[in-house]
Amino acid sequence: MLSTMQDVPLTIARILRHGTRVHGGSRITTWTGDGAPHRQTFAETGERVARLAHALRDELGVREEDRVATLMWNNSEHVEAYFAVPAMGAVLHTLNLRLPADQLAWIVNHAADRVVLVNGSLIPLLAPLMPRLETVEHIVVVGPGDTSALDSALEGHPARVHAYEDLLAGRPDAYDWPELDERSAAAMCYTSGTTGDPKGVVYSHRSIYLHSMQVNMTQSMALTDADTSLPVVPMFHVNAWGLPHAALMTGVNLLMPDRFLQPAPLAEMIATERPTHAAAVPTIWQGLLAELDARPRDVSSMKRVTIGGAACPPSLMSAFEERHGVTLCHAWGMTETSPLGSVAMPPGGVSAEEEFAYRVTQGRFPAGVEARLAAPDGTFAPWDGSSTGELEVRGPWIAGAYYGGADGEPIRPDDKFSPDGWLRTGDVGSISPDGYLTITDRAKDVIKSGGEWISSVELENALMAHDAVAEAAVVAVPDEKWGERPLAAVVFHEDESAVPYDELRTHLGKDLARWQLPERWTTVGSVPKTSVGKFDKKVLRKQYADGELDVTRLDD
Amino acid sequence: MLSTMQDVPLTIARILRHGTRVHGGSRITTWTGDGAPHRQTFAETGERVARLAHALRDELGVREEDRVATLMWNNSEHVEAYFAVPAMGAVLHTLNLRLPADQLAWIVNHAADRVVLVNGSLIPLLAPLMPRLETVEHIVVVGPGDTSALDSALEGHPARVHAYEDLLAGRPDAYDWPELDERSAAAMCYTSGTTGDPKGVVYSHRSIYLHSMQVNMTQSMALTDADTSLPVVPMFHVNAWGLPHAALMTGVNLLMPDRFLQPAPLAEMIATERPTHAAAVPTIWQGLLAELDARPRDVSSMKRVTIGGAACPPSLMSAFEERHGVTLCHAWGMTETSPLGSVAMPPGGVSAEEEFAYRVTQGRFPAGVEARLAAPDGTFAPWDGSSTGELEVRGPWIAGAYYGGADGEPIRPDDKFSPDGWLRTGDVGSISPDGYLTITDRAKDVIKSGGEWISSVELENALMAHDAVAEAAVVAVPDEKWGERPLAAVVFHEDESAVPYDELRTHLGKDLARWQLPERWTTVGSVPKTSVGKFDKKVLRKQYADGELDVTRLDD
Repeated sequence: MLSTMQDVPLTIARILRHGTRVHGGSRITTWTGDGAPHRQTFAETGERVARLAHALRDELGVREEDRVATLMWNNSEHVEAYFAVPAMGAVLHTLNLRLPADQLAWIVNHAADRVVLVNGSLIPLLAPLMPRLETVEHIVVVGPGDTSALDSALEGHPARVHAYEDLLAGRPDAYDWPELDERSAAAMCYTSGTTGDPKGVVYSHRSIYLHSMQVNMTQSMALTDADTSLPVVPMFHVNAWGLPHAALMTGVNLLMPDRFLQPAPLAEMIATERPTHAAAVPTIWQGLLAELDARPRDVSSMKRVTIGGAACPPSLMSAFEERHGVTLCHAWGMTETSPLGSVAMPPGGVSAEEEFAYRVTQGRFPAGVEARLAAPDGTFAPWDGSSTGELEVRGPWIAGAYYGGADGEPIRPDDKFSPDGWLRTGDVGSISPDGYLTITDRAKDVIKSGGEWISSVELENALMAHDAVAEAAVVAVPDEKWGERPLAAVVFHEDESAVPYDELRTHLGKDLARWQLPERWTTVGSVPKTSVGKFDKKVLRKQYADGELDVTRLDD
Repeated sequence: MLSTMQDVPLTIARILRHGTRVHGGSRITTWTGDGAPHRQTFAETGERVARLAHALRDELGVREEDRVATLMWNNSEHVEAYFAVPAMGAVLHTLNLRLPADQLAWIVNHAADRVVLVNGSLIPLLAPLMPRLETVEHIVVVGPGDTSALDSALEGHPARVHAYEDLLAGRPDAYDWPELDERSAAAMCYTSGTTGDPKGVVYSHRSIYLHSMQVNMTQSMALTDADTSLPVVPMFHVNAWGLPHAALMTGVNLLMPDRFLQPAPLAEMIATERPTHAAAVPTIWQGLLAELDARPRDVSSMKRVTIGGAACPPSLMSAFEERHGVTLCHAWGMTETSPLGSVAMPPGGVSAEEEFAYRVTQGRFPAGVEARLAAPDGTFAPWDGSSTGELEVRGPWIAGAYYGGADGEPIRPDDKFSPDGWLRTGDVGSISPDGYLTITDRAKDVIKSGGEWISSVELENALMAHDAVAEAAVVAVPDEKWGERPLAAVVFHEDESAVPYDELRTHLGKDLARWQLPERWTTVGSVPKTSVGKFDKKVLRKQYADGELDVTRLDD
C-alpha cells in the first residue's frame, strides 16, 4: 500500500534555496589575517552560487556527473563551490592539500576531475602536479596569488586558467536547479589510508541532506541561526563535518578561518568575532590553550566545541572548561560516515561528574546510525560497557562501498564491509547499555590473544603513566600458544634510570587483568612514528620479526 | 553517477529499535486520575511492542498492508500500537473519537480496517457503530471497561472481542521486523472537512521518519532526553503532532494524559510530574489559565509549549509568560502536513519585543517545507510580509493526494493540489522576507474584490475591538463592479446602544485601507456557528442571498 505523500527528493538545491531565502540575512565571515574580514550574507552567497553554476556550465562546459575539484581553504568561495557544483548535478571533489603530491595526483586522475578550483595561495602546491594530471581541462584561481608558476607548468598542457571573479562577473544571479535523484552523487572525498591506494567515498544528495538534519538535531551540534560556528576542521576533511550544509539548512552563521589555522590568529578571530561554536581536532585545541596561556584573550563566546578526529585528552577538556568556560564535546566519525557517527552529548538527568564521564567517551549513536560490535569469536558483543569488538555501523549516511573509478564497479573490500553490508570501521571498543561508544584501539593494533582481545592503547597509556616511562608502544607478536601476545617497547626518560621490567609489569597489574600483561619487553631509543606523528606499529612489528630488537621475556 | 552510500530505508522499525535500546531508560508515564500514574520504560515498551506484533500476526492474522485502527486516548498502549503496527508492515489508522458516528463508521469502512483497538472507556462510542462496520474482524479492548454493550452489539456480527493484555501475555518480547520500502504506508488519518466525505492522508515510513527528525531539530521543538513532553493534543490528531515518534528517536520522556483532559487534572499532572514541554490547541491553555487563576499550582517546569490548530490570542501568550514563566510557541500545520509546517521559534539576535512579534506569527518554514503564496492574479506573491495569497506547500512530509480506498487510485482534487503537485492549504496569508508565515484568513472566506483580497478575519477583529461590538462576522457577497465585496454582520453588546454604521466604518478606517471597508452592513442577534463553535459563514452568505438580512448600504 503506497502512501499519499509527495515524492520530494532530498537534494542540496533544496538546502541552498532554503538557506539563501529564509536565512538570507545569516552571514559567512572569512578571516583575512591583518585585513578586515570578508563578510557575505547567505542571500549574496546564493546569487554568487548561481553565477558560479552558470560559469561552470556555460563557460567551462561542466555537465551532470562531471567532477569539479577544489584545492581550497575554508572560505566563502569554497562554500559557493559546495553548493553550486552538486546543485547543478555535477560532483564536488574536495582535495586534501596535506596529502603527498603523488597521492594528490593519483586521486585527481582516479576521480577524473575536469575542473580544479584552487586558492591563489595554493598554486605552489598545484603547479608541480599539472604535468601528471590527465583529465583536468580548467584551473580556476580563487583569490589573489602568483599564477606564474601555473603558467609555466601548463606549457604543453591543454588546461586553461581562469580567474574566479572574472568567471562569475555579469552572469545571472539565479539558476534553474535541476530536480535530481536524491541517490545521485553530490560530493566525493578520498580517505588517506596508510596502506594501498586512497579510497573514494561518494556522498549522495540524500546522505548529505539527512546528515545535515542530524547535525542540527538537539543531541548533535544543536545549532540555530543565533549561533556562529567556526569550522577549523578543513572543508576537505569530510565536508568540514557537515557544517556548511547544516549552516544553510538552519541559518547558522559561519566564521571561516581561511589559511589562518595557527593558534595566534585563531585566538584573535575567536576574541574578535565571538563564535558560539567551533569544530576541530584535539591538536588545534592543545595549541590554542597554550596560546591563551601565553597571551590571554576572551574565548568564552564559544559555548560548545565539537572535537573529533582523535581522542581528546580529558585534561585538555577540563582545562578549557575551568580556565575559559568552554565545553568540549567529543564526536566520533570517519570519511565513510559523513562523518557524524556519534556525539558525546551527555544524557539528561545526570550529575556534573557523570556528565564528564559521558563527555570523554566517543559519544552516543543517533537513530540514523545503527551499531554493533563484531567480537573475536564471530558473535556480536553485548552493549555492557566492557565487552569489546570491532565497531560496525549501518545507516543512510554511511558508506557501503568505495568509488571504483569512472568505468569501474564500486569496490567492497572484505576488510571494510561485512557480507551483509555494514561498514567495518577498524575501531575496537565497547558500547554502554545507553549507547555510548568508547574506542579502545584500532583493529589492526589490537592483540588477539586466545580468543580475547587486548587493547594496545590501554597498555600504552598505563605504561606511560609510570614516572620512569617517556613513551611506550605495544604491538602484537606471534605466539605459539595464544596466537598473539603483546610486546611492550619502552622509552625511558633520559634523566631517569631504567626500572626493571617486572616493576613495570607489576605497575600494569594494578589496573589490568593478569592475562593482559606483556611477557615480552624491549627498550628503544624512540618509538617509530608516521609522517603525521602517530606510532608506526608496522615498523616495530617488522623490527621484532627481523630479530632487530633486544627482547627480554618475563615468564610467570 | 551513483553514490557509494548504503541504501538504508527510513523506517519506523529503525526508530523503534533505536529508542528502545539507546534510550531504553526513558519513560512513558500515563496519568490515571486518582490512582498512581502508570510508568513504563522505553525498554519495556519495546518488549510489549514485540508482543503486540506477534499477537496481531499470529492470533489475529494481520498481514502487511492490513489496516489496524485505534480508538484510544493518549496512553502507553497507544504508543505500543503506534510502533507495532507500522513496524510489522501493517498500517495504523487512528480514529478521531470526536467525530459524529456517521463519519466514524464511514471512515472505518473506507479504510477497510480489519482490527480496532479500543480503550475500555470508549466502548460506548464503538458499540453502536458495530452493525455498520463491514470490514472489522477483531475488537481488542485496552484497559478496563464494561464490554457488555459490545457483546450485545456483536450479536450477528462476525467480529471477535479480545482483551489486550490477554493477547500479549506469553508472547516473545522480540520481533524480527521486516525491512520495508520507506515509501510504503505506515499510518493514516482522515481529515474532518466541513464539506464532502472525510479524506484520508496516508503517511509513509519515510515521511514519518523525516518529520521526526524535524521535530527534534533545534528550530522546531528542540527536545532531548532531558525533556518530558506532555502531548495534550490527541494521538488521533495527526499523530499527536509527531511527538511519539520523535520521542523514541531521541529519548524524550512522555507524560500521557489519557482521558484526563480537563483543566483540573491537567494542572494536577503538570504540577506533579513536571513536564518540560507540552503541546495542545489554544482552548486547552485558555482553560488551564483559568484553572490556575482559581487554584494556583506551579506549572513553571514547562519551559516551552507548542501551540497549534488555531491562532493563539497574544494575550494568552503574555499571560502564561508573565504569570507562570511559560513560553508559548506557535506552530502551523494540518493533517496533510504531518503536521509540522512551520514553528514560530524567533530568529537569533532579536530583542525581547521583536521576539514576541515573531512568536505570534504562525512560524518559520524549515528546509523540508517549501512555501509559496498563490495570489489572486495567478502569480505568486512576494515574501514581503504584506502581500497575501493562498499558501501552497511542498515537501517530503506533505501530502500529494488523498487515499482512494482499497481498490481506488489516489484522489487529487484541483482545489487541494496544484497541477505541479503542491498542496493548496486553504489558508490565506503573507510571508515575511525571513520566512515567517502570518495567516490572515481561510481561502473560502477571503473577499476577492477587484483582483485584490480582503481578509474577513482582519475586518472582524477590527470591528470587535470597538467597545459597542460583541461579535462581528464579515462575509463576501456578490458585487457587480468588484466581483465580491464585504458584508459586515454586527452583534451589539446588550447593554450598549447600537452605534451608527458609519461610525464603525470610520473606526475601521483607522487601521485599514479605504478599499477594504465594507459598504454593506447588517445587525444580527448572534453570529451563526458550527458545531465546534466557529463562525458558520455559509449560513450568513445564504441568508444574504435569500434576502433574509436587513442590509444598510453606505456609499462613499
